[in-house]
Amino acid sequence: MEIARPYLLFLGDVPDDLAAKTAYGIVDWRRDWCVGQFRLPGCKADAEIPDMTIAEAVSAGARTMIIGVVNAGGVLPDHWVESIVTAIEAGLDIASGLHMRLGEIEAIAEAAQRCGRQLFDVRHSRERFATGKGTKRSGKRLLTVGTDCSVGKKYAALALEKGMRDAGFDADFRATGQTGIFISGRGVSVDAVVADFISGAAEWLTPAAPDSHWDVVEGQGSLFHPSFAGVTLGLLHGAQPDAFVVCHEPTRTHMRNVQHPLPTIGQVIEATIASGRLTNPAIRCVGICINTEKLDEAEAREICERTATEYGVPASDPVRFGVEGIVARIARDFPAS
Amino acid sequence: MEIARPYLLFLGDVPDDLAAKTAYGIVDWRRDWCVGQFRLPGCKADAEIPDMTIAEAVSAGARTMIIGVVNAGGVLPDHWVESIVTAIEAGLDIASGLHMRLGEIEAIAEAAQRCGRQLFDVRHSRERFATGKGTKRSGKRLLTVGTDCSVGKKYAALALEKGMRDAGFDADFRATGQTGIFISGRGVSVDAVVADFISGAAEWLTPAAPDSHWDVVEGQGSLFHPSFAGVTLGLLHGAQPDAFVVCHEPTRTHMRNVQHPLPTIGQVIEATIASGRLTNPAIRCVGICINTEKLDEAEAREICERTATEYGVPASDPVRFGVEGIVARIARDFPAS
Repeated sequence: MEIARPYLLFLGDVPDDLAAKTAYGIVDWRRDWCVGQFRLPGCKADAEIPDMTIAEAVSAGARTMIIGVVNAGGVLPDHWVESIVTAIEAGLDIASGLHMRLGEIEAIAEAAQRCGRQLFDVRHSRERFATGKGTKRSGKRLLTVGTDCSVGKKYAALALEKGMRDAGFDADFRATGQTGIFISGRGVSVDAVVADFISGAAEWLTPAAPDSHWDVVEGQGSLFHPSFAGVTLGLLHGAQPDAFVVCHEPTRTHMRNVQHPLPTIGQVIEATIASGRLTNPAIRCVGICINTEKLDEAEAREICERTATEYGVPASDPVRFGVEGIVARIARDFPAS
Repeated sequence: MEIARPYLLFLGDVPDDLAAKTAYGIVDWRRDWCVGQFRLPGCKADAEIPDMTIAEAVSAGARTMIIGVVNAGGVLPDHWVESIVTAIEAGLDIASGLHMRLGEIEAIAEAAQRCGRQLFDVRHSRERFATGKGTKRSGKRLLTVGTDCSVGKKYAALALEKGMRDAGFDADFRATGQTGIFISGRGVSVDAVVADFISGAAEWLTPAAPDSHWDVVEGQGSLFHPSFAGVTLGLLHGAQPDAFVVCHEPTRTHMRNVQHPLPTIGQVIEATIASGRLTNPAIRCVGICINTEKLDEAEAREICERTATEYGVPASDPVRFGVEGIVARIARDFPAS
């Protein structure tokens, strides 16, 4: 699956910013892939890129319209169908991260068939995965892991891809969730594959590569989250990372959507090494990314410094302070690459 | 999903015993649920129960015909379809553990619709699971775990159900794979659910129950198997076992279908407790089941005794020597139940 670029971002008439999180993420990380946004009357979100009609977007070179929104239940509202059919008829492919498949809507399926356009449901991979083999592959891999879900693992991985490229590394972000897939144009939503194939999907996503190449893999869930730890473990085994970065949100009081307390960063390091060495005995922690959005500047600096001292690896907020320290640590720990 | 009993076992014309493993398992554990077997000319398997035509089975009270076989690729051969349609027309439901869905075959789907019979594809649950919550539920649970796949976790769980019932416990086997589902008439094939819902499916399978009730849950995979550990961990978190039994095959030299060495029983105990305490802080090992099929009697007794001494819990081959010691240990460790 490779989604053609550039994109037109469809925001529909979503009621708030949160519903447009996917579109915002694409603009944050791949502004130059986006020709504009297409909004319906009443839309309360704004990705702060030019508003365009579908015809204007096609003239500007757009190849794919991305349904860059989420809504309750993952269902596509009926009143969006007309715009999607218009886009298909204007020559655009359509890509969606909703649970509901585009092809389940007859008017959309029919238009795509008639016009020879592609429909991408990025939550549902078309790939037929093998079960994981656990065999060591060439090339290097870094995985972001977390003390919880939604603590910034995707942002950390994207920041590390950028930082490593700036430092001369041959590095590619590998997406494991819908927003990441739009940002990289490929990937697999690992939480949507059949359970037997989690590690196999991760192996497919991060294939053998030259020894100096780094896959920077977006993590999912947490080994300590009672809902999703199975996905996290399968991804860890399949990605067989040489290096991992722990992501953490210091103001959170319990795991997302459940009542369990957060593990410490130290517990996550220990559990990741204990499980990860099954497929990569040399696995090591190379840094900690702290999401300090809710802290003031002084508090943010203090917690990064304190955490770095406590665990003996660089710690930073990748958005606020960058990832130079972590990239330098990777360069030091893996001198051949 | 509750499959109506008794069963007629369909063996088709499979070429060997291995292909009829599912049917043999049903006869081993639920002989009184089986009125007979139906075989096609050339069948090389024999479940050693009466051969019957479909009409004879219906007269004998059969309610469901079980496709009790596996074959390469999990596909249903064309020349079996006629027998299945005949069974549906004679008033039987059909249940299959093949990957391919019964309803994908038009003649079968049409006959079931026309005759008002049910089709059960036990690998594919019809349930819509929630994500796991990790909240402690009432009732008690025992999970069988393993040093590898296919080391006897299902047989151990079934033997423990029987042994616990014989000792006066209120205990129910909970199936997590196709053969187990036929043996208990219900269950969920956890390796076939979408990755996000592994622990949720396990929670659904083992709901809140009276405090003295035990669910004896069939384990899957191994925390140390690089292909399937994600499934194993999700099942462990969802089942939130109070007690677990480690299953082991002592002659195996590497993990099934991969090159990784087997973990020790001690490593499995340690990893199961470390991960399992997330949803049940009181989790404990109550026994070890050793598959001694390839050892002579003296070797088998010796390894069970040595293992029991080494780990301080009862160890036995459940098929050869029974599970009385483990059941006694459960009674001792959980006196209230």
